[in-house]
Formats: sequence, structure tokens, C-alpha cells
Amino acid sequence: MTVRIGVIGTGAIGRDHARRINQVLGGATVVALSDVNRASAEAVKSDIAPDAAIFTTGEELISSPDVDAVLVTSWGATHEQYVLAAIAAGKPCFCEKPLATTADGAKRIVDAEVAHGKRLVQVGFMRRYDAGYVALKQFVDTKIGAPIMVHAAHRNPAVPEQYVTPMAIHDTMIHEIDVLRWLLDDDYISARVLFPRSAARSHAKLRDPQIVILETAKGTIIDVEIFVNCHYGYDIQCEVVGEDGVATLPEPMAIQTRLGAKLQNDILTDWKDRFIASYDVELQDFINAAAKGTAAGPNSWDGYVAAITSDACVAAQEAEGGAVAINLPTRSALYN
Amino acid sequence: MTVRIGVIGTGAIGRDHARRINQVLGGATVVALSDVNRASAEAVKSDIAPDAAIFTTGEELISSPDVDAVLVTSWGATHEQYVLAAIAAGKPCFCEKPLATTADGAKRIVDAEVAHGKRLVQVGFMRRYDAGYVALKQFVDTKIGAPIMVHAAHRNPAVPEQYVTPMAIHDTMIHEIDVLRWLLDDDYISARVLFPRSAARSHAKLRDPQIVILETAKGTIIDVEIFVNCHYGYDIQCEVVGEDGVATLPEPMAIQTRLGAKLQNDILTDWKDRFIASYDVELQDFINAAAKGTAAGPNSWDGYVAAITSDACVAAQEAEGGAVAINLPTRSALYN
Amino acid sequence: MTVRIGVIGTGAIGRDHARRINQVLGGATVVALSDVNRASAEAVKSDIAPDAAIFTTGEELISSPDVDAVLVTSWGATHEQYVLAAIAAGKPCFCEKPLATTADGAKRIVDAEVAHGKRLVQVGFMRRYDAGYVALKQFVDTKIGAPIMVHAAHRNPAVPEQYVTPMAIHDTMIHEIDVLRWLLDDDYISARVLFPRSAARSHAKLRDPQIVILETAKGTIIDVEIFVNCHYGYDIQCEVVGEDGVATLPEPMAIQTRLGAKLQNDILTDWKDRFIASYDVELQDFINAAAKGTAAGPNSWDGYVAAITSDACVAAQEAEGGAVAINLPTRSALYN
Amino acid sequence: MTVRIGVIGTGAIGRDHARRINQVLGGATVVALSDVNRASAEAVKSDIAPDAAIFTTGEELISSPDVDAVLVTSWGATHEQYVLAAIAAGKPCFCEKPLATTADGAKRIVDAEVAHGKRLVQVGFMRRYDAGYVALKQFVDTKIGAPIMVHAAHRNPAVPEQYVTPMAIHDTMIHEIDVLRWLLDDDYISARVLFPRSAARSHAKLRDPQIVILETAKGTIIDVEIFVNCHYGYDIQCEVVGEDGVATLPEPMAIQTRLGAKLQNDILTDWKDRFIASYDVELQDFINAAAKGTAAGPNSWDGYVAAITSDACVAAQEAEGGAVAINLPTRSALYN
Repeated sequence: MTVRIGVIGTGAIGRDHARRINQVLGGATVVALSDVNRASAEAVKSDIAPDAAIFTTGEELISSPDVDAVLVTSWGATHEQYVLAAIAAGKPCFCEKPLATTADGAKRIVDAEVAHGKRLVQVGFMRRYDAGYVALKQFVDTKIGAPIMVHAAHRNPAVPEQYVTPMAIHDTMIHEIDVLRWLLDDDYISARVLFPRSAARSHAKLRDPQIVILETAKGTIIDVEIFVNCHYGYDIQCEVVGEDGVATLPEPMAIQTRLGAKLQNDILTDWKDRFIASYDVELQDFINAAAKGTAAGPNSWDGYVAAITSDACVAAQEAEGGAVAINLPTRSALYN
Repeated sequence: MTVRIGVIGTGAIGRDHARRINQVLGGATVVALSDVNRASAEAVKSDIAPDAAIFTTGEELISSPDVDAVLVTSWGATHEQYVLAAIAAGKPCFCEKPLATTADGAKRIVDAEVAHGKRLVQVGFMRRYDAGYVALKQFVDTKIGAPIMVHAAHRNPAVPEQYVTPMAIHDTMIHEIDVLRWLLDDDYISARVLFPRSAARSHAKLRDPQIVILETAKGTIIDVEIFVNCHYGYDIQCEVVGEDGVATLPEPMAIQTRLGAKLQNDILTDWKDRFIASYDVELQDFINAAAKGTAAGPNSWDGYVAAITSDACVAAQEAEGGAVAINLPTRSALYN
Repeated sequence: MTVRIGVIGTGAIGRDHARRINQVLGGATVVALSDVNRASAEAVKSDIAPDAAIFTTGEELISSPDVDAVLVTSWGATHEQYVLAAIAAGKPCFCEKPLATTADGAKRIVDAEVAHGKRLVQVGFMRRYDAGYVALKQFVDTKIGAPIMVHAAHRNPAVPEQYVTPMAIHDTMIHEIDVLRWLLDDDYISARVLFPRSAARSHAKLRDPQIVILETAKGTIIDVEIFVNCHYGYDIQCEVVGEDGVATLPEPMAIQTRLGAKLQNDILTDWKDRFIASYDVELQDFINAAAKGTAAGPNSWDGYVAAITSDACVAAQEAEGGAVAINLPTRSALYN
Repeated sequence: MTVRIGVIGTGAIGRDHARRINQVLGGATVVALSDVNRASAEAVKSDIAPDAAIFTTGEELISSPDVDAVLVTSWGATHEQYVLAAIAAGKPCFCEKPLATTADGAKRIVDAEVAHGKRLVQVGFMRRYDAGYVALKQFVDTKIGAPIMVHAAHRNPAVPEQYVTPMAIHDTMIHEIDVLRWLLDDDYISARVLFPRSAARSHAKLRDPQIVILETAKGTIIDVEIFVNCHYGYDIQCEVVGEDGVATLPEPMAIQTRLGAKLQNDILTDWKDRFIASYDVELQDFINAAAKGTAAGPNSWDGYVAAITSDACVAAQEAEGGAVAINLPTRSALYN
């Protein structure tokens, strides 16, 4: 069967996912589009999905009998309502980050999905699908002994002035929050944030860089350098130290040259290039599960935990290096 | 439109391409299967392509009005007849290596396609689609100045006793023959082969390793180490030395570990893993071109030149280090 | 002139330094030896320095008119008395770590040297002479912009049961304490220690690994992983993140092999091999300065600051992640 | 004992060796100097060796009873006469490359030393003392199985117009000729030279690059790229392929940086920096052997073989890719 997909929100990421579904991936086709800016939906129809119907509201799209599964790629503040509507309709739903803009909102989605009794939601944490992280997880699980420490860095060349201190958590660190929890198969119990002096290239309302330290239930300590004005490139580092040894996330594939007295590789500068391949894998996973009426990959619980952890990290930004506890409710068996 | 594809030859590679088309790639579906062993075709139908029709002969499959394009993945000796039939039918045709088992056979295909007046044939030289070679070509074209030398190696852990000296050219070096010509945008004018003492793990009828030296029309010298009993892994190396510097093919992505007093990465051992991703890209390229009634990627002329060059290299194996000239006929404008 | 050196303490390190002076380095010769175990001194005389006189006490050796300069390589608890005696005699003195076993003891040496009015003491912090750190300092000073963060690791395969938690600071971290201060040209203002769960290979009286976090006067934050039961090797890592980019300490020179499906380098397992070359450079620096009647390299103030910082780190081990302030007295102009 | 050394030829290399002996190394002192340009010798006396006597001729220096051992660092054409004089005087003699300017000259030295009956001559092939090559040899001897192939490169940024085609052998390839023979513990039996088109930066009288192919008595094939106008740096590469795997010469120690979208290391540009440390080790080896009245390291036979091999390679430059045989006389037992 071909999964008939409706896309709610046809901005950059929605358009790109539509392209993936219709031109790159197998097993699905875009049959419906919706956007608050109707012209945007019409452009995607014209360029990518000529057979798609355009709906005025996301809710109408979700309830259409021609739609088997839903992509929520609209503005973050609207995610919760569309995901809840998809659950109510019993339709598989892929939701870009964040699952909801508050932990409470994420909790409502978890509760609705648990009440429904079957997984329907996949959250767009694409790093879990990156070949490097997948290989790293295999090594962490089998080669280096039980993990004890993780040293990570998330570096970005520059950010605009609207990017303020808490966004380093909500927009940037959010990826490490999810992927490291998955990598370690563990839960966080506390967060600390340490601030060195801010970089000269930072802005008045942004303390940058910062070092976020997470402790897990199993006693692993994670330090993550978040540096969004690092200037030199977009660079994701992750090293896991276990009982027997260390495993390191690979650098992206790059040609090594010998030129002008330098032995060198290019470093990426645009975050969109870093995990580009994992978007394909992530969405194919969604399609394959949706064809069976369910969802795979990062789930609502993961989205909820990410929200709780983010909130703790932001609180820790104000705690002068003190630890902020992270208390999670009991996990429903649906997410085991 | 969805390209309706017929697959002739449903052995390992044919089955795998059918899986790609139906499960991984977009824009095509397998509608027809044929194999001298009908049970093999039926197994592929049952496992992968339930809606496909099974044809007794490749020619019948090619002439079916339900088939838009053809994959020739049968035994090498049958490639020529099926490709010629596809050209006669005016249908795009993807042909696995070799295009034909003789240079004359490849020439007949070239002549037929030129007579037809439009490209219809893609040859399965998948390395041109490997992300590493694609990036290397970009650097060779733009960063290191005009190429002057290439140092390459093609190493394989072990071969069975049936693998004899000329097969090091026809089955192994054939990939370098095609991809280096493409990488340099150049043609070969001579070949030499030098033999060090054979490795202890080689066989009575196989001189292994060998060093094949190709000279190009532009004056570049290429040395390729072919070592098919290297024991330690499957390893493809390529370094291009230009006027301004050197560019090197990347190693495959691998997790680096620190374990047991070693800083180490895994090396692949199975050739099938090395270019696995490029098969997807190659076949998608075929599908996209077939949707427009034509073919892209490595063409019949490339297959023909590969055959002529292989023959010269095999002759050079008997020439005690002497140069064997490679003379190419004039290229039809169809292939410019 | 040839500097005539007396060695106090002829255990492993004293013997090795005597060998350096007489067999490897230029400009000095060992003329005097002393050890509480006279047989040890006689063995060094017999094996390495046949012309050396043997003295019963370090003080007698120091006061001998045939001795131009002194090496203090005795048991740590005796360092202070010999260094003070050398200063009193106005003779250049190389003292192995620690300069004194307490910060107060180090302070007495600083005061004595300041009162003397000229540098006479070099402390054996050999990492400052390592070619890797020297090159790293050059890059930190000139290429990567002002430093903001340092990520470091000091890993050792295993320690005996006598090695308890504070020794991770006094015996291990002490090297990072000195070399990072030198690398950054900065002073520490606070220390924190975080403990993940202890490694299974650790001992009852040792919490291992630990993460020591130092903050500097200029606002740089340094995290140092100390892991002395890491099992896989002796491994020193140091990465400096500056305003413009990142510089990394090189790995020790190693042959890369491709063997058994692994691309690998050896990692050292014995700390003595890691900085072996820097001992030669360090001692030559001492000889060259001693020939002029003074001292170079790490000075008494550096030894004193290291003692104060170590004490703060040990206090921080008990502070549950809280910051312990590091307050330094005013530095004498002698050490600018 | 302190070895009293006389230096014949006080140009750049002679001066630098005098500095090494008097300021860096142990066990020797420069007591005599001689140069056709007496002012040059006097400058070295004044700057480095104030106690040295100045001799008008090398022969007078050699025969002085105050001189225990001799360094021949004069113009190449005079090497033979001074080495022969040193042998006649029974004094250990370190001779910079070449041992003699002709194979016949080298043969006369070999014959004289054999007649003398004891080793007295060390030839200045410093690469054998490079830590990287020493480690590589250990791996070649013990880890990768018997060698079958060597791939090497000797690249230099630029050469002046006086540097003509045969100099690529005599001045550049000479280092590989010696060090690879030592690395493999083998002898050469033939040489070939292949020329790609010359680099645009080359000169009218220099074919550059060239690929020199040597075959050894044990059947190993060596390819060496000589490229002296490679522009990007001074770069020495060496990879040995054995029965079980591959070992690679390490890159020189370098700081890795992340700067301006590049992950990069510096490459050396001046050949003098590449093996700087090995000059110290080489000369210390000479001093240590001279103290016992003999010589160590590369011997006269090695110098003679290098001359014969160089001559064959130059002949091969004219042989259009054909093999030129290398026939060695029987080696005297003195050199086993």
C-alpha cells in the first residue's frame, strides 16, 4: 500500500519533507496540504505534489478520509493541537520538534496517546537516524563497557540577535538532550550550567558559550559545550568514555587535501548539511510504521522528557552552577 | 509518472535492485521479472514484487507494452543480447557490468545506440555515484590544479582458487578503469603491469599483487595496486596529485575507539558494504532519466572503453613491464 | 664552562637525571651524589658517574665548593629543606615535584628566593617542555583567538590500592594544574569536582573517574577528566577553544597500520614514555641557566600556586559539586 | 672520555654539526676546524668552538694527534680524499652525503676500509635515525608480514633552475634509495623511471615529477614519486604493504586546528625541519662509536650501493620506462 500523507505547515521544513516523500522515499505520497498561508501550500502543490488537495485548516486535513497519516511541520505553538487531533483521529503523526512548547502540553499528548492505547506519534529527533550516531550507539552498547562519562560539543558559527540565552537550550541543546538519552539508554536526574566569559562575538542577551552538565540515573556525567558563535563552523562532537575504553562520533565525510602548506578537510558551516541524510531515514521509518497504522522512532514520551529536561537546564542557567533536579513521572508501558 | 521496470536476471544483484526499486527508491515499480531459473523470479515476485508478471524470456519481457524500462542483471554472457533488444525496443536499459564480455560486443551496443540516436543505456559503474568519489572529483576539478599523477589501491581480503590472473583486471581493476577515467575526464593511451613476488596467500594460477600503470592522453600517470589476497580487509585508496596539491578519497565512516592500547577504526572486509549507498543513487539516477525516456550516468561508450582498456591491461600482464598501447576509435557525439 | 652538578636522591628519577646529564645532554657533569641509602648513590657512581663524590647528607653536598648546582630528586617530604639550603648557598637548584608537600612549605621557598633576589629554583613540571604543548601554546597565543574553554583528560590504565581519592589531584591532576595555567597565561579562581559513578575497576578508597572544573581570572572554564583506571592506556588529551577556533594537543607519534580489519595506532600504556623527551629538554634548560648562575622554566611561584590549587581541588572533592575559591597572594616581581 | 673532533668544511652543515657537538650532544668536543675559506672556520671558532685549532688543510687536521675523530662536511667532490685520509690515519670519520661523487670513488673507500679491517666510516644518511622510520622498521620487521610493495613519495615545494633531471636522483631520491634498502633489509636489482607530463612549475631542464620504480632481490616492488615542484610543502610519505597488512610512516607532529571552516594541520615547507631531530641522534651515534675507536650506522658499503643505485636510476631516466639492471659486487664480511 501507498501511505497517503497530509502535510500541515508548508514552510521550509514542510516543503522539504514533501519533496522527500514524493521524490526520494518509497511507499508514500503527499495527498493533502495545509498552511495558514494558503499561497505557501499552493506553491508546494504546484512544485512538488500536483495531486494534493489543499485544506483550509489542519483539523480538516486530519479528518479527511483520504489522509492516512499526518506530518506536523507548522509553527511550534500549533504542534500540540494538531498532534492531539491526529491521535483523536487514530492517524499516525510525525511531529517536528518541539512536540509541544511546554512540558504540560507534551504531557497532554502522552496522556492522549496512552489513552488511545497504541503508538501514533513520532517526534522529529533526526539525530537518532544519523549513521554516525547509530554506529556510535552500537559501539557504546557492545564495545567500550558501561558508559561513565560523555563529553560533547555543539558548535554553530553565529546566531542572530533574537537568539537569547534560553534558546541555547530549547533550540540547540535539545538535540543532545534527546540523542544522548537514547545513546545511553538512561534518564537524567540533574542539570547544571556553567558560564565562562562570553565570546566577543556574542550578543548582549546571550551568554555564549555555556557548559551544560547532566547527571543520569545510572551515574553517568555528561558535559556538553554549547557554543553558537564559535565562528569556525558547525561542528558536533561526542565522545563516550566507558569502563573499557572510549568511542567517538565520526567527523562528517570530507576530502583531505594537501594544499598551501596545510593538510586539511572542510568543516561544515550550515547545520542543515550535517544531518541531511538522517531526515530521509527518519521519514522512511515513519512511512514504514504508518503503513502498519502505528509509529516508530522517538515517541511522545521522548518529547515530554526533552521538554522537562530543557526546562531544568534553563532553570540551571539561573542557578550559578548549582544542580537543578530533574524528576520524571512514571513512564507508561506504551513507551517501553 | 511511475516508471514500470522489468528485471532480467533475478540472482543476488537482480533481487537486490528489485528491492531497491520497490522499497527504497521513489518513482518506479517492478512490473516484470525473468530468469532462466523461473523459481528464482517467482521468489522475487513473492518476496518483493507481488504484482510483477513473470516472463519466460528476457526478449518477451522487453517487448511487453507494460514495461517502460529494463534492468539487465543476468549472467554476463547474456548482457549484450538483452541490451541490444532493449535498444531495438527503444526502452531505457540499466546493464550491470560488463556491458558485454568482449570489446566487439560492447562496440555493437555502441553502434546500435548511436544508430538509434538517443541515449538508452546506463552501465552499472556504481563508484561514480559514491559520495566520496563525487566529492573527490569536485576537488580534482576545482582545488588541486590539473592532475599529474594518481596513486590508487584496490585491496580485497581473499579470493577463491577460480580467481586467476586476468580476473584481477576484468573483475577488480575494471572499477578503477572506469572511475579514474571519469575522475580525470581523460582517456588512457597505454598500460603496463608490474608483478612483485606473489603473496604467500595467493594461488598457483594467480599472480597477486600486481601494479597496473596507466598513462593518459593528457600525460597523467596512474598507478593502481591490485591486491586481492591482502588479508586485512577490503580497502579502496585513491590519491590525486595535481599542480597545486593533493586530494585523497575519504575512508568509509567509522567509529574511532580507544581500547586495549589501540586507537582504532574498523576496516570493511566485504566489498558489498563499501559502495552500498551508491547503488541506491545510481539506480535512482536511472529511474529519473528513464522517466524521460532516456539514460544518464555511465554510458555504452564508457562500457566499451572499459572493455578495450581491460584487454590492454591483460595483454600487459604478459608483456614483462612493457607498455601496451591503448587505441580508441573516435567517439560519437552522442557520448559527449 | 661545564656545570658541576650534585644529585640529592638517587632513586629512579635521580639516577635517570644523572644518566641524562652525563650521557645525553651537553654542558654539565655529575660531580656529587647523596642518598639516605648510600648503596643507591654508590650504584649510580659506579654505573653512570665514576668521578662523583658521595656525600652523607644533602646539606654537605650543597655546601661543597665543587658543586655548582643541585638536583633535588629525593623523597618529596625532604624537598623543602634541600631547596632552602640551595637558596641559602646561592646555588641553582632543580627540584622535582612537589616543590614542598604543603602550600606553606612552598611559600617559605618563595619567600627565601625573593629575599635572595634572584631566581635559583626550577620545578620539575616537564610538560611545559613537551614539543606538543609547546606547539599548542604557540597556537593558543597566536591562532585561535583568546581562549574561552579547555577540555582536557588525563587517563591512566590502572593504579594500586594505595592510590586514594586525593592523590588524583596531588599526583595526577597536578600536571594539568601547572601546564594549563602556563598554557593560558592565567590564574585559577575556583575549583569544582564532579563524580560520576566510580568505574568497576576502581578501589574502595578511590572515587574514579572525577571531573575537575577550574575557572580562571580571565573567565576561562577548564574541565579535566581524571580517570586513573581507564584500562585502555595512558592518554593525555587537551583541546583549547578560543574566540576564533579550536587547537588540539597532538597524539604521540605512532605508526598507523592496517591489520586484521582494523586501521590502528598503538596508544601508550606507561606514563614514563609519554613525556620522556621533555625530561631532556627540561634538564638542558636547567643546565643552560645554571651556567649563568640562575634558573629558568617553572619557578617557585609556580610550585606554590600548584600547591594552593591542589589543596582547593581536594577541598572541592568534599564539596558535592560546589565551587571552592582559590585565593592567591600577590606575586613578587621576581616571577613576572 | 671526551671524543676530540675535527670538522673539515665549515659551511652550513659543518657549522650546524659543530653546534650540535658543543652545545647539544654529550661526549665530544670540537677541537679542530678547517675550511678552504679560512674565514668561515674562524667564524665557527669564534661563535661555537673557541678552543678549536684551525688547520689549513683537511689532511693536516686529520693527522693532528689532538684529533680523535673527523667530520667531513666539505664540498662533495672532496669527500673521497678526506675519508681515505681518515681511514689511513685509523680515525673514525663521519662523512656527509655523498660518500664520493662516483661509484668508483665509493668503491675505493670500501676497499680501503676493508683493508684496514675495522669500520671507521659513517655516512650521513640521517633518515635511518628518524623516530618515524625507526618505528616503521620495527613494524615492518614484526607486524605486517614480509614486505611485498612500498609506495613512497618525496615532495618538495620548489627548486631553482640549476636543479636538473638527474639531480632528482642524486640529491633527492638518494634518501629513499638508502632508507628503503635499510627498511626492507634487501638489495635492489633493477630500476625504472616513468615520467608523467611535467608540472607547469617545473623548468626547461627538469622533468618533474617522476616515478622511480625499484625491484629488490626478494621481489619487492617500490614506487617512489619524486616531485620537487609540488608547491604545497615538503612532504615525505612511505607505506609498506606486507603479507598481513600495511604500515605507514607517521606525519610530523602538528597541532590540529578548527579554524575558518577547515580542520587542518600545518605541513612543513622546509626540508631542514623534517629530519632535524635525527641529525642529533645520528651524530650522537657517531660520537658513541668513535669513543670506542670505530663507527656505527650507515657504512661505506651503504654509500657505495647508494652510488651504484643512483647511477642506475639516472640511466633509467633515459630508458623510456625500461628496466635498468643493478648489479652489486659481493659484500665484504666487514659490512654484515
